[in-house]
Amino acid sequence: MSTRIEALLEELSTKQLESILVTSPANVYYLSNYYTDPHERVVAVYVSTHHEPVLILPAMESEDAKAAGWNYSMIDYHDHEDPWELFLAFLNNSGKIPETLGVEEDNLTLSRYNNIKEILPDTDVKQARELLASLRVIKNQQEYELLKKAAELADFGVQTGVNALREGITELEVIAEIEYELKKQGVQSMSFSTMVLFGQKAASPHGTPGAAKLQPGDMVLFDLGVIYEGYCSDITRTVAFKSVNDEQEKIYQTVLEGQLKAIEASKIGTAVGNIDLAARDHIEANGYGKYFNHRIGHGLGIETHEYPSLHGKNTLPLEKGMCFTIEPGIYVPKTAGVRIEDMIFVTENGAEILTKFPKELQIIK
Amino acid sequence: MSTRIEALLEELSTKQLESILVTSPANVYYLSNYYTDPHERVVAVYVSTHHEPVLILPAMESEDAKAAGWNYSMIDYHDHEDPWELFLAFLNNSGKIPETLGVEEDNLTLSRYNNIKEILPDTDVKQARELLASLRVIKNQQEYELLKKAAELADFGVQTGVNALREGITELEVIAEIEYELKKQGVQSMSFSTMVLFGQKAASPHGTPGAAKLQPGDMVLFDLGVIYEGYCSDITRTVAFKSVNDEQEKIYQTVLEGQLKAIEASKIGTAVGNIDLAARDHIEANGYGKYFNHRIGHGLGIETHEYPSLHGKNTLPLEKGMCFTIEPGIYVPKTAGVRIEDMIFVTENGAEILTKFPKELQIIK
Repeated sequence: MSTRIEALLEELSTKQLESILVTSPANVYYLSNYYTDPHERVVAVYVSTHHEPVLILPAMESEDAKAAGWNYSMIDYHDHEDPWELFLAFLNNSGKIPETLGVEEDNLTLSRYNNIKEILPDTDVKQARELLASLRVIKNQQEYELLKKAAELADFGVQTGVNALREGITELEVIAEIEYELKKQGVQSMSFSTMVLFGQKAASPHGTPGAAKLQPGDMVLFDLGVIYEGYCSDITRTVAFKSVNDEQEKIYQTVLEGQLKAIEASKIGTAVGNIDLAARDHIEANGYGKYFNHRIGHGLGIETHEYPSLHGKNTLPLEKGMCFTIEPGIYVPKTAGVRIEDMIFVTENGAEILTKFPKELQIIK
Repeated sequence: MSTRIEALLEELSTKQLESILVTSPANVYYLSNYYTDPHERVVAVYVSTHHEPVLILPAMESEDAKAAGWNYSMIDYHDHEDPWELFLAFLNNSGKIPETLGVEEDNLTLSRYNNIKEILPDTDVKQARELLASLRVIKNQQEYELLKKAAELADFGVQTGVNALREGITELEVIAEIEYELKKQGVQSMSFSTMVLFGQKAASPHGTPGAAKLQPGDMVLFDLGVIYEGYCSDITRTVAFKSVNDEQEKIYQTVLEGQLKAIEASKIGTAVGNIDLAARDHIEANGYGKYFNHRIGHGLGIETHEYPSLHGKNTLPLEKGMCFTIEPGIYVPKTAGVRIEDMIFVTENGAEILTKFPKELQIIK
């Protein structure tokens, strides 16, 4: 049995659950080493304390799943077949309908929940999201190496973007350069849509890149990440193009100081909410509180956004092996938007910063 | 009131529903003209027969939503706030807790369903996925134009990929070229991960591109699409590099003939399942039935995969304004994989093929 499935079985017995049906692509990957984005098709790993695990997936993917290393049972169905009926038949053949079944309530749709209730009307379906989250939130050495490599590639992406800046280039052209060079480094996918925003557009934390042309005096915000062997990176840097004015510089320094304070607060045992507050207090004291309108960061690993959520009210204590972003920002509409984001890995010796691109304000000439 | 919200209100009254909470990013976009991928954050449009619609979204996105044209009510929440509590307060203030509420059961997670049941314990929550699907499945003239433009860009992507082929180039390098040129054309996002597969790897319908080097005698499969102003395209072409052997050619011709038969079957009033069968019968008759292991196609529009699903058992009759793919494939492990995919738009005069890249077998020298 793989160590991850063994760890999950242990969690199941601790929580007095007989079985779990894992349906989120990230958790299916975590357990099977096979990543697939099934769109509307069902993909699931069923782990039971009674028999070996089974992977439910479209027939056209069964060879790929085996190649990725899945060597337990498989229910591979064709598009005209009902995977839930096949699953029920499997359970009947295996001789064991579970009395309790965990599901991921933040991924399982109402419609699939109804499918489950239909085939297993007497099974007690329980919310078990925390179970896999609690396994995934602590990364091991191998995951650390992958995250570190993903972070290096993100640094390379920012450097490529900075190198591409010249008057008149568009946001989309800069993105094209970044992704082209990353693909040539062997990157198969970005971890989310690469963001490059010029000037006032950067004042929207979730703005959309377009055909805006770079002008002297613009600040340029890069937010990007890659997927490296299944693990995500995420970095944000903001640079000035040709020149910087006093307000831009003040905003930049306030964000940077806030970010450094948050990193300093990232010690084992600290409530993660305090990391948010460390930056927020500083930004508020400088008069920009209302322009920092999102949490300080989020966990990352197989997903760009995963546990823990670093918002001010989260009392979860920081543990060794956690990986997350610290990314305060100040967005003053029609003036400037600055965000600085690093990936942090918690070690026995404190916060290790995986993303290394320089953070002192750079004015690109 | 926007015409789409008016049409939805009409559907609500037909179905005797007082209200609907729309949570899927695609449907939120359809109703609000604002696209956002909220990850774990809640984004929803609430449409009620009692008062004007309201958009629930993270505070940091409220300016973007307004800029996209949303000019009704808004519940914009910060990360430390509970959007469900705010929504309940809004309903209490509006003076109307709905007795019936539709939800999208194939998007709404169990956890959010529980959130809704918690704030609205006396409301009858009903499955209403079909309601929006039935609106979206028929495209209007404006949507037709966007899909056609998206298809043109997909053709351009394939042409770019074919132009890039040379001995020794890797799959990822070809993808980098394609996406670079598309970004320079103003494309912000691909509609899914671009697929370029060489030789035997193409025999897996969902294979993953990597560092494989192109060799003479390989067949090359391209599957790609772009998002153009919110609408998706999707095309697949397979070409031969330098030479082709008899079996590859036989497989190619069988797929092509099957695809043409399926297009011919795409007439108003035909059950969509018959489109699948038209190709499948031909492929089976040629001895490759077991190697065509997926449905013939899927609807597309705001999403790459949307209604209708073109599998053999779907009796839905084809209507004017539907848009979908026709993409038979034959995947013979260790031998070859060929798929040919077009986007079809149903007009009064029959099936219009939006993707135009040639389909005769090309041997790239």
